[in-house]
Amino acid sequence: MDSEKFSPLFWPVRLKGSTISVLDETALPQKVVYLKVHDYEEACSAIQEMKTRAVGQVLLVLYAFLLIIKQTKGRKYLLPSLQKAVKAIHATRPTFPFAVLTDMVLDWARQGKPLEEMITGFLERLRGKRIHQAEEASKLIRGGDTILTHCNVSGLLPLMGKFCLQQKKQIRFFVTETRPYLQGARLTAWELQEQGFDVTIITDSTVAYLMSQDMINKVIVGADQLAQNGDIANKIGTYQIAILAHYFNIPFYVLCPPAAKVKTGKDIAIEVRPDKELLEYRGVRLAPSDAKGYYPAFDITPARLITKHIPLEL
Amino acid sequence: MDSEKFSPLFWPVRLKGSTISVLDETALPQKVVYLKVHDYEEACSAIQEMKTRAVGQVLLVLYAFLLIIKQTKGRKYLLPSLQKAVKAIHATRPTFPFAVLTDMVLDWARQGKPLEEMITGFLERLRGKRIHQAEEASKLIRGGDTILTHCNVSGLLPLMGKFCLQQKKQIRFFVTETRPYLQGARLTAWELQEQGFDVTIITDSTVAYLMSQDMINKVIVGADQLAQNGDIANKIGTYQIAILAHYFNIPFYVLCPPAAKVKTGKDIAIEVRPDKELLEYRGVRLAPSDAKGYYPAFDITPARLITKHIPLEL
Repeated sequence: MDSEKFSPLFWPVRLKGSTISVLDETALPQKVVYLKVHDYEEACSAIQEMKTRAVGQVLLVLYAFLLIIKQTKGRKYLLPSLQKAVKAIHATRPTFPFAVLTDMVLDWARQGKPLEEMITGFLERLRGKRIHQAEEASKLIRGGDTILTHCNVSGLLPLMGKFCLQQKKQIRFFVTETRPYLQGARLTAWELQEQGFDVTIITDSTVAYLMSQDMINKVIVGADQLAQNGDIANKIGTYQIAILAHYFNIPFYVLCPPAAKVKTGKDIAIEVRPDKELLEYRGVRLAPSDAKGYYPAFDITPARLITKHIPLEL
Repeated sequence: MDSEKFSPLFWPVRLKGSTISVLDETALPQKVVYLKVHDYEEACSAIQEMKTRAVGQVLLVLYAFLLIIKQTKGRKYLLPSLQKAVKAIHATRPTFPFAVLTDMVLDWARQGKPLEEMITGFLERLRGKRIHQAEEASKLIRGGDTILTHCNVSGLLPLMGKFCLQQKKQIRFFVTETRPYLQGARLTAWELQEQGFDVTIITDSTVAYLMSQDMINKVIVGADQLAQNGDIANKIGTYQIAILAHYFNIPFYVLCPPAAKVKTGKDIAIEVRPDKELLEYRGVRLAPSDAKGYYPAFDITPARLITKHIPLEL
């Protein structure tokens, strides 16, 4: 695979010198803009404001650690600096398992390992394993399949699609728009289309209808967190698509991150975001001015509804 | 019930002299505006542009017939005038069973019945029966219930809520925003809130999560068409909510119109609307500029998923 031609969402954060560039996902698809981030505090703001998400959060946190390492004079100050940053990172968003990354880095620091090399090595492995994960996913697909996805899996679906083409399998995609942030319409439809795939946007409410019309052969989604028992946390709406896939006997596959420490989905905190994000769109009020909304940003899909986990083993 | 205090959506179309006033549902909740309609052609445009829908379509068609009766000089021209209008009405939107109304009126005309009185009598009966339907629905509700609804049932839910209050039953509502036209957020949340009820807006993707958290006791929706076997056509997304209610063992009730002539849901044509309505919101492009969407506006919920039909018998 020619990685120059990957979706920009596959590796949406880069480090050059002492500046991190973050693809601003909230500006897509109208504008492809990179934000400049200079320290962990700016990194935390970018995460909180959902400028980046999913794998972008992993990259941003690790690059922020690399910045701290560069910026900290004197070895004895390093661990406290890292710990201070870790606290801020954990406070950004509750559902994403930042501890998987931060514990790893803090352990390396405590053990006196060469931190910069360790993090850089981890990022290289992550890159290779993600490509491998997309290839593994492609093996589950048959030529002629129409695949439904929800939200955005950070460049993995176009990559999977390219592996399918290498294997002479033509595929098509349906993508839910994924309210309220419209990651499906704005990010997934955009990256699949940019990479030359046939993709059709539907509302989040159209899933059962498509399934009942035999218009979907497979469902593939990502996950923000994988529990030890195979339950996953992912964008709100994933759970109901899994129930519908089960009802219609359609395989439901999950491109997983490495397992977190939590035992089951019940142990994963669900982030509830401000209802304004649901009741307004780009400053336009959608609902009555004094209406209230409820916006849990994730839900838990139990392992029993998942036909197959496609793991990312680092 | 003091009908002055009903939701404006309960009877959103009125006739005064030779002008029909149509509540413009596309302007709600920001503005409560009534469009002026002077003939059946303007009535057809208002239906096609979704200025009114559901019971509003019934009223608008019948008032348009009353206008034709007033405007037609000479009895022998009346039936051809009506037939011409019927053709245009049938061409507006495919899923709504206009034939139930138009066949009725044409039959009366052919039989030489006093058309104005027949139509006026029908409208009066419709009003009374709708109030009765809301009362019947209220009997299915327990005090403390939280009720989920989808799209908008033209003023019946606030009315049902008032009957619940008469019966000393406190209830709360969740409403799906109902993409892409947001009838849930714009119409249902608005009318319930105006009438003093506790209502919370969620995305269409939040249904399974709420049900899994025991936050929903009952689902009540409307229907655009009822087939002879009990299948219903309603706003896209209804079908998947019914499957989810079944999965979580939650009663699923439908406020039905009179049965149409079709035998089963399979005989109901599903209207596919322009994808622009999904890919743009009030002129703001949501998706990539060259993306395509698929927007079936209705789906069919099979009778086996409906716990109870709440009929409207005229």
